[in-house]
Amino acid sequence: MNMSDKRVYLYDSTLRDGQQTQGVDFSAADKTAIAKALDELSIDYIEGGWPGANPTDDAFFANPPKLKNSKLTAFGMTRRAGRSASNDPGLASLAQNAPIVCMVGKSWDFQVTEALGIELDENLAMIADSIAHLKTKVSEVMFDAEHFFDGYKANRDYALSAIKAAYEAGARWVVLCDTNGGTLPDEIFDIVTDVCSQIPGAHVGIHCHNDTENAVANSLAAVRAGARQVQGTLNGLGERCGNANLISIIPTLMLKMGFDVGVSKDQLTQLRRISHILDERLNREPTRQAAYVGDSAFAHKGGLHVSAVEKNPACYEHVEPELVGNQRHILVSDQAGRSNILARFREIGVDVDPKSEAVGKLVENVKQREFDGYAYDGAEASFELLARKAMGELDRYFRVTSFRVIDERRWGDEQDEQVITMSEATVKVVVGDDQFMSVAEGNGPVNALDAALRKVLLTVPEYRDAVEQIELIDYKVRIITRGDGTRAVTRVMIESRDAEGNNWATVGVSTNIIEASYNALRDSITYKLFKSGVRSQHG
Amino acid sequence: MNMSDKRVYLYDSTLRDGQQTQGVDFSAADKTAIAKALDELSIDYIEGGWPGANPTDDAFFANPPKLKNSKLTAFGMTRRAGRSASNDPGLASLAQNAPIVCMVGKSWDFQVTEALGIELDENLAMIADSIAHLKTKVSEVMFDAEHFFDGYKANRDYALSAIKAAYEAGARWVVLCDTNGGTLPDEIFDIVTDVCSQIPGAHVGIHCHNDTENAVANSLAAVRAGARQVQGTLNGLGERCGNANLISIIPTLMLKMGFDVGVSKDQLTQLRRISHILDERLNREPTRQAAYVGDSAFAHKGGLHVSAVEKNPACYEHVEPELVGNQRHILVSDQAGRSNILARFREIGVDVDPKSEAVGKLVENVKQREFDGYAYDGAEASFELLARKAMGELDRYFRVTSFRVIDERRWGDEQDEQVITMSEATVKVVVGDDQFMSVAEGNGPVNALDAALRKVLLTVPEYRDAVEQIELIDYKVRIITRGDGTRAVTRVMIESRDAEGNNWATVGVSTNIIEASYNALRDSITYKLFKSGVRSQHG
Repeated sequence: MNMSDKRVYLYDSTLRDGQQTQGVDFSAADKTAIAKALDELSIDYIEGGWPGANPTDDAFFANPPKLKNSKLTAFGMTRRAGRSASNDPGLASLAQNAPIVCMVGKSWDFQVTEALGIELDENLAMIADSIAHLKTKVSEVMFDAEHFFDGYKANRDYALSAIKAAYEAGARWVVLCDTNGGTLPDEIFDIVTDVCSQIPGAHVGIHCHNDTENAVANSLAAVRAGARQVQGTLNGLGERCGNANLISIIPTLMLKMGFDVGVSKDQLTQLRRISHILDERLNREPTRQAAYVGDSAFAHKGGLHVSAVEKNPACYEHVEPELVGNQRHILVSDQAGRSNILARFREIGVDVDPKSEAVGKLVENVKQREFDGYAYDGAEASFELLARKAMGELDRYFRVTSFRVIDERRWGDEQDEQVITMSEATVKVVVGDDQFMSVAEGNGPVNALDAALRKVLLTVPEYRDAVEQIELIDYKVRIITRGDGTRAVTRVMIESRDAEGNNWATVGVSTNIIEASYNALRDSITYKLFKSGVRSQHG
Repeated sequence: MNMSDKRVYLYDSTLRDGQQTQGVDFSAADKTAIAKALDELSIDYIEGGWPGANPTDDAFFANPPKLKNSKLTAFGMTRRAGRSASNDPGLASLAQNAPIVCMVGKSWDFQVTEALGIELDENLAMIADSIAHLKTKVSEVMFDAEHFFDGYKANRDYALSAIKAAYEAGARWVVLCDTNGGTLPDEIFDIVTDVCSQIPGAHVGIHCHNDTENAVANSLAAVRAGARQVQGTLNGLGERCGNANLISIIPTLMLKMGFDVGVSKDQLTQLRRISHILDERLNREPTRQAAYVGDSAFAHKGGLHVSAVEKNPACYEHVEPELVGNQRHILVSDQAGRSNILARFREIGVDVDPKSEAVGKLVENVKQREFDGYAYDGAEASFELLARKAMGELDRYFRVTSFRVIDERRWGDEQDEQVITMSEATVKVVVGDDQFMSVAEGNGPVNALDAALRKVLLTVPEYRDAVEQIELIDYKVRIITRGDGTRAVTRVMIESRDAEGNNWATVGVSTNIIEASYNALRDSITYKLFKSGVRSQHG
């Protein structure tokens, strides 16, 4: 093959192999939405599923998405033993469903004789017949050699004869699958190098699994050895430990190895968004530490690092975050030196004079609070309030003078039938010269307290619009001091959202979970009022 | 170097580099617990932190854990420019804190001139002086060459001269750091090969980050090139995208590459447990698809796979799950779920007849509860109570007919001085024919409820001894349903201990955190009474 060939084709299997993941069950609508996202990224091949295997895949192929850049591929199996290709219902169904077909077959002699229980030659005939037959029905056929690397190690000649049978019968690609995911990068490199001496690399693909956490490295090793198609999934979704993660492979091939993967630089800036589309469909929190696209991928916490990053980002960033649609974050923490905290202030637009006394106090205050268990990483809104208060920029909007929460349970009989269940909160709040008192119920003490506080603030005309918008979307509790039973110090983090789609996170800490929750709630409401430019009525 | 040298040393940086992770803030108690877990696994070096950098690390080194197998290491920096090593307060503090010291320094010329703003030769002197000085104070000194790979690519000779300065001054190890995490495995291999031609590989270490999802592969490439120390963290914890994941590297080095990493086969079977200890400390759900140790790592979903796996596990498993303390999971059939639950019953010593109707109901009950959010993994005591109750083996000891918790806060003035703070719980409890009522205060609602309930049970002479012993040592809260604000379903897990040193964990689930906590508390007390062989007075 021509090693200078810099075009690597991408093949996405999120909708087929990704579907095998524990806990994943795509609907046809999910599949369509994900296919459209892959199309936006210009992935060459989108494997839609296995027609005939389940009702979802049938529904998807019956009404396939219109794709602008990508080609839809159907997955299936070579013909059954002892049956002609033209007479095989599986192959017939495949031909009807998509312009491109990828068929899986055996290349490990042990699997042929043990799992299929057939002659080795019959397996080669099944491969060749199926490829040759479908080649006359669809525009492109490829062959997935299941267990190729285990097969090669057990019987090199037979494994090679299986993929040669496919190639010689007209397969556009023969794809080498590390089905069990146990092969290491140097083995992959050596074996693919050998394969590419027999079949041009421009027709060789690689399909890896992450069982040793090497799926990305294995895919890159295969490309270095000459393979020119890479199969994988978004975010590494897939059975067991997942498939090779295309979200990591794409920028590495493009930005570090100089390959053309059919994705433009503009499309690459959508990488983070595309990764998040899959998480949304799965109702999962995106992985913070995901390579390239995670929230933490360009986050800087250590104090030493931060001052260096500000001087020159190349000191601690391997690529520019903007290239993959990500951005730099400066984090605040116990680790942080002063420069860290000051950088964070600048990021949120608080103008600070590093020499002022107020700033010095603020830095000490942050450090002390973090020692107490506050964690301002991921609770930027509470951090901003603290800073603006220290700078004298924050008005007080209301003052809670007292609250009381009552939580009651009564059971009726020996069978523990619960007959009374009640959570009630009372708050007294001062706004300006007015004192308000309100009471509300909830399905738990914090929910009741939240309801009672809002009830008051909604009666203040100037606050109403802002408060009405606040929606609490996540509530996390963490015990900080351990080994102390129910006396432990608790950290509550609340994430809120408004009608314009802004998200913000606030934090509260106390030995009392109700009080910790109240602190985080208070910050959440105050932050929204501040950001909405509402004038304080408290005076 | 002698390439046949099969001993690779492991260096864990969970407590130092792992601490840099967004959202991670270890307490000194966390650090001690994690160090003990690492010691159980026989990790050669445990980096405890950076003495002098923050109060937590100071507290940890002031009272270091007693280690049986591992050696504690302190992290620090080479001497400052323009100061003698013997006069550097950082070095002096390092020498006092641990028998082994690892110092970081620059090896990239650009960083020396730009970030430090000093002459290249002064940097070499800083390295050599610091190593030579500390070598006289502690038993072992190593050098972390920050940005080594970027430095090598920019100026090979200077990067090599930096590590040679450290080696020649007496560093036991020079550790090559891919600080930005952007180097690819083939580059690592080539560069480490070159380094090992100058410094014996038996003195060369590797420290990788996962910014391209290649940290594991990079570490393995360095070992293949001759490096004999691998630095990493548990579960790949660490700044940005994390450090190299020792949990993946250890079994690969041992089981696939034939290296001795100082971990015995028996210790290797603790790998999954050790991985989970870190997650527990971080109050994180373990990653299902983690290589080797994840719940999904040996889970089989596809119907085709499952029958093949049952015939011969080697068809779809790259190693035996038991070697790393994991197990095979068959996900498809209800039948598999059932035998799984039955196996768990047998594990805790509950003798079940699979054909009995009670068992059928129990299995359905467990499945329903797990669907509701109960997690009996890690809450074996609650699971056992459920099983024994279904089998008619569990007496009821008491019946709470009602409880009420009142939580109140009052503030005095505009400065938010808190003047009244009160958590009070009232319970009504029936034991046999007697009805008790009691009230207690606590520093939070759950603590008050716990106190009130104990107050009653301590008055029952037959229960007194057992109840007196119960100590709640951990209390964890996790929100299960997301995106639902303070209405979310909450899971509370309580860990208890008795005077004989037995530990047990119980679980409660509810939308109301007080009720979830009560359920877990009730189970904890019931379990202790049952295990103590106390006869029920409830009748």
